[in-house]
Amino acid sequence: HRTIGIIGTGNFAQAFACRLLQSGYDVILGSRKPTERMVSNTHDCWCNISITTVDECIKNSNTIVVAIHNKHWRDTLSPFVELLKDKIIIDVSNKKCLTKGPSNAEQLQKLLSHSLVVKAFNVVSAYDMESQTSGGSHNVYIASDNFVARNTVADLVRDLGFTPKDYGVLWNARKIEKMPLQLFPEWKFPIGFTFLVFIIWYLYAIFIYFVEKTSYSWEQIFVKVTNKPLCMTAFTILACTYLPSSIAAIFQIYNGSKHVRFPGWLDTWLRTRKQLGLTAFTLAFVHVIMSILIMSPTYLKSWYHETEIVIPKNITSDLHFPIRTWMTWKGEAACLAGIIAFLGLCILAVTSIKSVGDQLNWREWRCIQSKLGHGVLLLSLCHVVVMGSPYWIKAGPLKTFRSITFLSSVLPMITLFLKLCFSLPFISGYVKRIRHGWE
Amino acid sequence: HRTIGIIGTGNFAQAFACRLLQSGYDVILGSRKPTERMVSNTHDCWCNISITTVDECIKNSNTIVVAIHNKHWRDTLSPFVELLKDKIIIDVSNKKCLTKGPSNAEQLQKLLSHSLVVKAFNVVSAYDMESQTSGGSHNVYIASDNFVARNTVADLVRDLGFTPKDYGVLWNARKIEKMPLQLFPEWKFPIGFTFLVFIIWYLYAIFIYFVEKTSYSWEQIFVKVTNKPLCMTAFTILACTYLPSSIAAIFQIYNGSKHVRFPGWLDTWLRTRKQLGLTAFTLAFVHVIMSILIMSPTYLKSWYHETEIVIPKNITSDLHFPIRTWMTWKGEAACLAGIIAFLGLCILAVTSIKSVGDQLNWREWRCIQSKLGHGVLLLSLCHVVVMGSPYWIKAGPLKTFRSITFLSSVLPMITLFLKLCFSLPFISGYVKRIRHGWE
Amino acid sequence: HRTIGIIGTGNFAQAFACRLLQSGYDVILGSRKPTERMVSNTHDCWCNISITTVDECIKNSNTIVVAIHNKHWRDTLSPFVELLKDKIIIDVSNKKCLTKGPSNAEQLQKLLSHSLVVKAFNVVSAYDMESQTSGGSHNVYIASDNFVARNTVADLVRDLGFTPKDYGVLWNARKIEKMPLQLFPEWKFPIGFTFLVFIIWYLYAIFIYFVEKTSYSWEQIFVKVTNKPLCMTAFTILACTYLPSSIAAIFQIYNGSKHVRFPGWLDTWLRTRKQLGLTAFTLAFVHVIMSILIMSPTYLKSWYHETEIVIPKNITSDLHFPIRTWMTWKGEAACLAGIIAFLGLCILAVTSIKSVGDQLNWREWRCIQSKLGHGVLLLSLCHVVVMGSPYWIKAGPLKTFRSITFLSSVLPMITLFLKLCFSLPFISGYVKRIRHGWE
Ligand SMILES: Cc1cc2nc3c(=O)[nH]c(=O)nc-3n(C[C@H](O)[C@H](O)[C@H](O)COP(=O)(O)OP(=O)(O)OC[C@H]3O[C@@H](n4cnc5c(N)ncnc54)[C@H](O)[C@@H]3O)c2cc1C
Ligand SMILES: Cc1cc2nc3c(=O)[nH]c(=O)nc-3n(C[C@H](O)[C@H](O)[C@H](O)COP(=O)(O)OP(=O)(O)OC[C@H]3O[C@@H](n4cnc5c(N)ncnc54)[C@H](O)[C@@H]3O)c2cc1C
Ligand SMILES: Cc1cc2nc3c(=O)[nH]c(=O)nc-3n(C[C@H](O)[C@H](O)[C@H](O)COP(=O)(O)OP(=O)(O)OC[C@H]3O[C@@H](n4cnc5c(N)ncnc54)[C@H](O)[C@@H]3O)c2cc1C
Ligand SMILES: NC(=O)c1ccc[n+]([C@@H]2O[C@H](COP(=O)([O-])OP(=O)(O)OC[C@H]3O[C@@H](n4cnc5c(N)ncnc54)[C@H](OP(=O)(O)O)[C@@H]3O)[C@@H](O)[C@H]2O)c1
Ligand SMILES: NC(=O)c1ccc[n+]([C@@H]2O[C@H](COP(=O)([O-])OP(=O)(O)OC[C@H]3O[C@@H](n4cnc5c(N)ncnc54)[C@H](OP(=O)(O)O)[C@@H]3O)[C@@H](O)[C@H]2O)c1
Ligand SMILES: NC(=O)c1ccc[n+]([C@@H]2O[C@H](COP(=O)([O-])OP(=O)(O)OC[C@H]3O[C@@H](n4cnc5c(N)ncnc54)[C@H](OP(=O)(O)O)[C@@H]3O)[C@@H](O)[C@H]2O)c1
Ligand SMILES: CCCCCCCCCCCCCCCC(=O)OC[C@H](COP(=O)(O)O)OC(=O)CCCCCCCCCCCCCCC
Ligand SMILES: CCCCCCCCCCCCCCCC(=O)OC[C@H](COP(=O)(O)O)OC(=O)CCCCCCCCCCCCCCC
Ligand SMILES: CCCCCCCCCCCCCCCC(=O)OC[C@H](COP(=O)(O)O)OC(=O)CCCCCCCCCCCCCCC
Ligand code: HEM
Ligand code: HEM
Ligand code: HEM
Repeated sequence: HRTIGIIGTGNFAQAFACRLLQSGYDVILGSRKPTERMVSNTHDCWCNISITTVDECIKNSNTIVVAIHNKHWRDTLSPFVELLKDKIIIDVSNKKCLTKGPSNAEQLQKLLSHSLVVKAFNVVSAYDMESQTSGGSHNVYIASDNFVARNTVADLVRDLGFTPKDYGVLWNARKIEKMPLQLFPEWKFPIGFTFLVFIIWYLYAIFIYFVEKTSYSWEQIFVKVTNKPLCMTAFTILACTYLPSSIAAIFQIYNGSKHVRFPGWLDTWLRTRKQLGLTAFTLAFVHVIMSILIMSPTYLKSWYHETEIVIPKNITSDLHFPIRTWMTWKGEAACLAGIIAFLGLCILAVTSIKSVGDQLNWREWRCIQSKLGHGVLLLSLCHVVVMGSPYWIKAGPLKTFRSITFLSSVLPMITLFLKLCFSLPFISGYVKRIRHGWE
Repeated sequence: HRTIGIIGTGNFAQAFACRLLQSGYDVILGSRKPTERMVSNTHDCWCNISITTVDECIKNSNTIVVAIHNKHWRDTLSPFVELLKDKIIIDVSNKKCLTKGPSNAEQLQKLLSHSLVVKAFNVVSAYDMESQTSGGSHNVYIASDNFVARNTVADLVRDLGFTPKDYGVLWNARKIEKMPLQLFPEWKFPIGFTFLVFIIWYLYAIFIYFVEKTSYSWEQIFVKVTNKPLCMTAFTILACTYLPSSIAAIFQIYNGSKHVRFPGWLDTWLRTRKQLGLTAFTLAFVHVIMSILIMSPTYLKSWYHETEIVIPKNITSDLHFPIRTWMTWKGEAACLAGIIAFLGLCILAVTSIKSVGDQLNWREWRCIQSKLGHGVLLLSLCHVVVMGSPYWIKAGPLKTFRSITFLSSVLPMITLFLKLCFSLPFISGYVKRIRHGWE
Repeated sequence: HRTIGIIGTGNFAQAFACRLLQSGYDVILGSRKPTERMVSNTHDCWCNISITTVDECIKNSNTIVVAIHNKHWRDTLSPFVELLKDKIIIDVSNKKCLTKGPSNAEQLQKLLSHSLVVKAFNVVSAYDMESQTSGGSHNVYIASDNFVARNTVADLVRDLGFTPKDYGVLWNARKIEKMPLQLFPEWKFPIGFTFLVFIIWYLYAIFIYFVEKTSYSWEQIFVKVTNKPLCMTAFTILACTYLPSSIAAIFQIYNGSKHVRFPGWLDTWLRTRKQLGLTAFTLAFVHVIMSILIMSPTYLKSWYHETEIVIPKNITSDLHFPIRTWMTWKGEAACLAGIIAFLGLCILAVTSIKSVGDQLNWREWRCIQSKLGHGVLLLSLCHVVVMGSPYWIKAGPLKTFRSITFLSSVLPMITLFLKLCFSLPFISGYVKRIRHGWE
């Protein structure tokens, strides 16, 4: 049995000690005021704990966890620099907020330049550590400049029931310390943007359906009306997922080089395509459920044959009216296109799951994400054009241009058109040459 | 090429030998009666195999797999303790049933105290090893007190096409030997409980719809009637997923300490929240499909406007009856709430997939599991209240209390109410202090 | 900071250099014509790059990446065999097409027999390496005969933001070099087969519905008619997933041994069951959506009670016609069976995700894949039999045999019947004995 020393007796120190004891380690807590820190006897695991001074704690253990806030490190640890020499020091600290510059762990390594500082356990909360009833990720990221220390701590991590993830040299502690501070950073832009698009389409739909002329009753606002801006947003966002790669190509052609950096907005856009795509998928998913719920001749007049029953003034014989709700070819064809598009989206979404995507090689992944992706966009366009074209033909260009079906198709059309251009042998060869290297 | 010795010539030994040969290793089988064990020539991979005595087998190889049942270990291996010194011994044995105390591997290490015993391969079945056509997990868990032996075996595991998972010291063989014996241990309680709840709600629904007054025909038992107890169960189980954390808080306040152990039932309950949640999701999923299938004014009278056609006695002119199936505001609003709740559940379910959850840090995970989870519960409540409230207002308290909509909402309401209480600054601060540490 | 040398200045070399620089490494490019290779100043990361002769490059670095095509290796590297002694050589090359025999890496090791050749990075594309905006798998597979070299490169891989996957000895480079060349090899057979089955059923459905007698209008071709061959294909493919294990058992009984190799077609069939199963699931998924969309008495006459309104010749009082679309018991029961079958399929599909399946032990996995799988097949059969049996009884054996419901059930019935046979104690015991070992 190995002995682990913990400096500090706070929230994290207690939880960590508890977990260590349960896994069969010996623990020594080092406190400023060891006598004041009463040990509760109510909890089973506290019987074998010993609370001593920091000095004692360091002397009696080769692996030491620093569980005090980093602002107190200098005061607390400076006297023991010599004593800590060649020992493994585990830094569990977190920053309060995102800052640039060296990580806590690097600062600690500087302070204790002859110790083997290892960054670990900062991503685990004290609550998680203690209550074995809570879920969440069980990864612990490890960084250290010393290979052996890293492996020793990895073994410790495993013994405590977590999964070690080796992050290499201590420099990477910068990344590790960033982790617990983030809250979906890469989702902010796509969700904000989606919201904006949704609002705009919603207002337009309300204008068309309620302001301009009253097509629907306000009762229909929840599903029937909401469904419209929803699917338009899904469609727009899907187009936005596949647009930036063409814009990037335009930039590269314009600069004649791949070594010129993209402007910030394009870079962000390119980076958040995964999130945009998943958002489009989610909206399409909701659209599918909503559409299925309202699938009836009342809600979708033009998708079905006439359902009216006409009773003549003079009834000369018994009349039989079977209630008929056949779809027209337009309804069925639009459904089919929609279904296949949705299936494609599902497959795209499934391959976004890391453990599925990791089974695919680069060619396979691009075949699904890029080829199938554009296929889905095309099919969605068919879905909308089939729906809209009879009206477009009837209504003439002016009305067509203002129609929801047409407006929502503009961006996808542009996206597909650009993609087509960049697939032409001439242009694609040129782009390839630029992407290949030296100007 | 390395040589691997296998003691035993049984089912596992044959399969393992076959796999080793295919991966380019040399194999020596050690048997009690080497001459009797005929080698079949029909199978390609058997040409290079040699079957010798156990003695020979051990002498000629540095890595030895013990593929005989553990009750025969003492008889078979005792004579060779000296010969096995410093060699890597792979223990592949499984227990017949769950027992307490030291693992087989630890017992083997005791018997062969100077050998490097490694636990491995016990989770792989002989069938799986041999037939490369069968699927399933390809993880092989490894434990050993010797770091180098562990790594050597890990390399062997990789060469055979499996994925090694390092479990640290040999003590962990206890966990590894437990693995193949379990059959969904953590699902037993949630599924049993769900079943019970379902039966109770089913009986109540039958009482209301068939016994008290005949609302439906028995024909409707399969979907229309089953849908009711199903969604009520989903709702109840969802509430049960989020209830225990409040009960735990009450316990902690009552004890004034976090170091008092929770009673067994609460502990089990807290531990199976993931399974309860997934069960609720699965039931909700079935509920959604069923509801969509019966989405019509006939099945859901109060969700739709009146669809009756009235033909007057005297027809004075042609009558036109368009068939109209508009939903009322209640129907549409309930649908919307239900859809959003279901979407939330889908996102919760997706983050339960390990490789998705592992991408999230602790804050993000809690944001989805805890905040979104309670949001889903609230939305489901809206879904039900929108559905029920018009009736509640009309029917008065007595009938309301007996109504299915109200009864199914009681537990969720309690859950949300408790959560609200523990979120109030005053109480939440107090609970936080208790959870922070020393009494 | 370590220095990495790269031989070659092509597409891959540039991208790799860029990534190395960004991760804080020093890079030396070795070129045949170092002076001609101008360094662009537009891109930030190129300032610290130095381009020298191959000779200089090798002298100044201990880890060398060979980023030239393998046909030029002999010319370029032969002069430097001595200089490269004991250095780590990273081989990033890919083959043009699948070939048998030694891998590139093994050939390089033979050429540089005193260097430590490591296969790595070949699965990463230059584009992926450079543009940090693109997604896809981030695994890098590593193979080398030298343990230390492997670990060093694994650290490098990590520092560049990829995930190292250790594949053991250099022999495995054969597998690694195969990876980027494949395009869904294991999906070809199942998808081709599915297509064939679909075409056959489609033609039969068209024959029945349009040729023999006109049951539907051509308008219904997109959803109503397509739905039929689709679900029949799903059902057939599902049966085909569970059929081969029985055929394998028959083979083993016939041969009286498990050591006889299965014929090629059976082997392929057994190996692609996962893909067949997922295809069946996907088709069933589309079937479910389509069925839900057409869920109405018009489309599914026999599933609903009569909806006809009959107006008598002489109307003597006001007539009230509530529009009623109740399902019959047959409709509801078929729905229920279908829903449960689909739920089972969903669970089967979820456990195919690697990170979910890996949580299950072998017993659990078989319980879901084999038991639940056969359960799903049985339930699907119920779904179809409930649908078909009223007609079968009415129409007599001749018409029954030609009916779609019956025809689609034949293969599943055979599959289930065989499974039942092999579960009988007598036969199953015999098969088990054969599977246990020596003839
Ligand atoms: C579809 C679905 C899937 C699910 N999947 C999972 C799953 O994969 N894994 C899983 O575990 N559960 C899962 N669940 C169950 C459930 O969502 C989670 O258990 C959830 O975390 C419960 O949240 P809670 O707020 O009730 O409890 P907790 O998160 O346990 O919180 C309980 C209390 O402790 C407090 N607390 C939490 N952390 C701290 C801390 N560090 N310090 C002090 N106090 C703290 C909170 O404020 C709260 O009051 C799933 C549920 C559903 C519906
Ligand atoms: C949606 C879906 C997803 C699927 N996903 C997957 C997947 O991810 N991976 C996959 O492989 N398949 C998958 N499948 C296919 C299928 O479910 C499995 O291949 C399944 O295991 C087949 O079961 P089986 O009983 O027919 O055959 P097997 O499990 O191969 O069994 C064949 C015979 O061998 C016997 N046997 C099995 N083990 C032993 C043993 N140890 N000793 C002696 N005899 C033994 C059995 O008794 C049985 O008679 C999927 C199918 C579907 C529908
Ligand atoms: C449901 C859903 C899920 C999604 N999930 C993900 C996800 O998990 N991860 C993700 O990143 N995106 C995801 N996306 C977004 C999107 O599918 C991908 O980003 C997709 O790769 C974009 O393809 P592209 O062809 O537009 O761009 P890119 O693949 O970036 O290609 C852009 C251009 O570069 C060229 N090019 C590509 N590779 C090379 C090369 N090696 N050398 C030279 N030129 C090259 C191409 O020819 C193309 O012209 C998802 C989308 C959806 C709808
Ligand atoms: N809590 C978590 O969930 C969590 C999660 C991950 C990482 N961490 C990290 O763990 C470290 C400790 O966090 P914590 O939550 O345990 O903090 P805490 O509860 O406030 O405990 C801090 C401890 O530091 C000791 N200490 C030493 N010198 C001190 C000084 N000058 N002033 C105040 N205290 C001093 C104190 O113990 P004595 O009085 O006995 O000396 C005190 O108990 C932090 O770096 C934090 O970032 C915490
Ligand atoms: N089968 C599996 O799927 C599987 C999976 C995981 C782990 N395991 C483990 O592998 C081990 C072997 O299992 P198995 O299924 O291969 O068993 P088995 O088929 O019964 O073989 C046991 C072998 O042990 C040898 N043996 C040596 N001394 C013996 C004695 N006194 N009495 C009987 N046999 C003796 C026999 O070989 P000789 O007669 O030639 O000496 C016999 O062939 C067990 O520990 C088991 O838990 C098996
Ligand atoms: N591109 C990718 O996406 C990718 C991905 C994975 C692996 N790889 C592998 O990386 C290696 C290089 O690929 P690459 O795409 O970078 O190729 P490339 O762009 O054609 O570059 C090849 C480089 O090799 C050098 N070279 C040395 N001797 C040569 C000779 N006799 N003839 C021609 N060139 C010679 C040249 O540099 P100097 O003229 O300066 O000497 C040239 O720039 C290949 O083995 C490839 O399989 C590439
Ligand atoms: C609706 C669901 C989804 C619907 C339909 C789409 C699913 C598509 C299934 C096909 C998946 C193809 C993946 C191709 C990539 C590939 O080759 O993937 C490659 C790997 C192959 O792995 P191997 O190399 O181990 O064989 O495949 C996988 O890992 C397959 C994972 C499939 C997971 C399906 C999960 C579906 C979850 C559905 C939940 C329930 C949905 C409910 C609906 C109402
Ligand atoms: C219905 C399906 C599901 C429906 C809708 C819900 C899906 C929700 C999609 C949004 C997912 C958000 C995840 C947020 C967590 C996160 O940030 O996740 C974080 C990681 C981010 O990873 P990176 O750090 O690599 O960017 O994201 C993922 O890994 C995304 C995985 C998404 C997987 C979606 C799988 C859906 C499977 C659907 C099958 C088919 C359904 C068919 C329906 C009929
Ligand atoms: C439709 C969706 C799917 C529908 C219903 C089926 C889902 C079934 C959920 C139950 C899953 C049981 C898994 C049993 C295996 C097991 O024990 O699994 C074992 C592990 C247990 O892990 P632990 O050991 O960590 O507890 O469980 C998991 O990892 C659970 C993963 C569940 C993932 C569900 C993902 C669903 C994705 C749905 C997407 C949206 C669908 C939208 C629909 C329209
Ligand atoms: C199962 C699959 C699908 C079905 C059944 C379906 C059904 C419908 C229905 C019924 C409408 C008409 C809504 C109305 O007029 O109120 C509609 C419109 C629309 N759908 Fe779908 N859809 C499906 C998939 C998709 C997908 C995957 C997309 C792509 C994002 C999509 C995009 C759209 C768009 C943009 C419209 C608006 C057209 C307009 O301007 O009126 N649909 N869909
Ligand atoms: C797409 C989403 C959903 C739709 C379309 C939907 C639809 C319906 C319908 C039609 C009913 C009435 C059933 C009947 O009276 O026979 C119903 C009832 C109910 N739903 Fe949903 N639902 C959805 C999601 C959910 C979710 C996620 C939950 C939460 C668990 C839920 C819980 C309930 C409950 C508890 C009832 C019973 C109310 C009662 O007592 O009558 N629903 N739902
Ligand atoms: C939610 C689940 C399901 C629903 C609502 C459903 C609904 C239907 C409907 C409405 C039909 C009649 C189609 C028509 O006559 O045009 C049908 C037929 C059929 N379904 Fe399903 N189904 C479900 C799940 C499944 C599953 C999982 C399978 C299995 C693969 C399956 C296999 C079949 C087959 C083979 C037929 C053709 C029967 C025939 O010959 O007419 N279904 N289903």
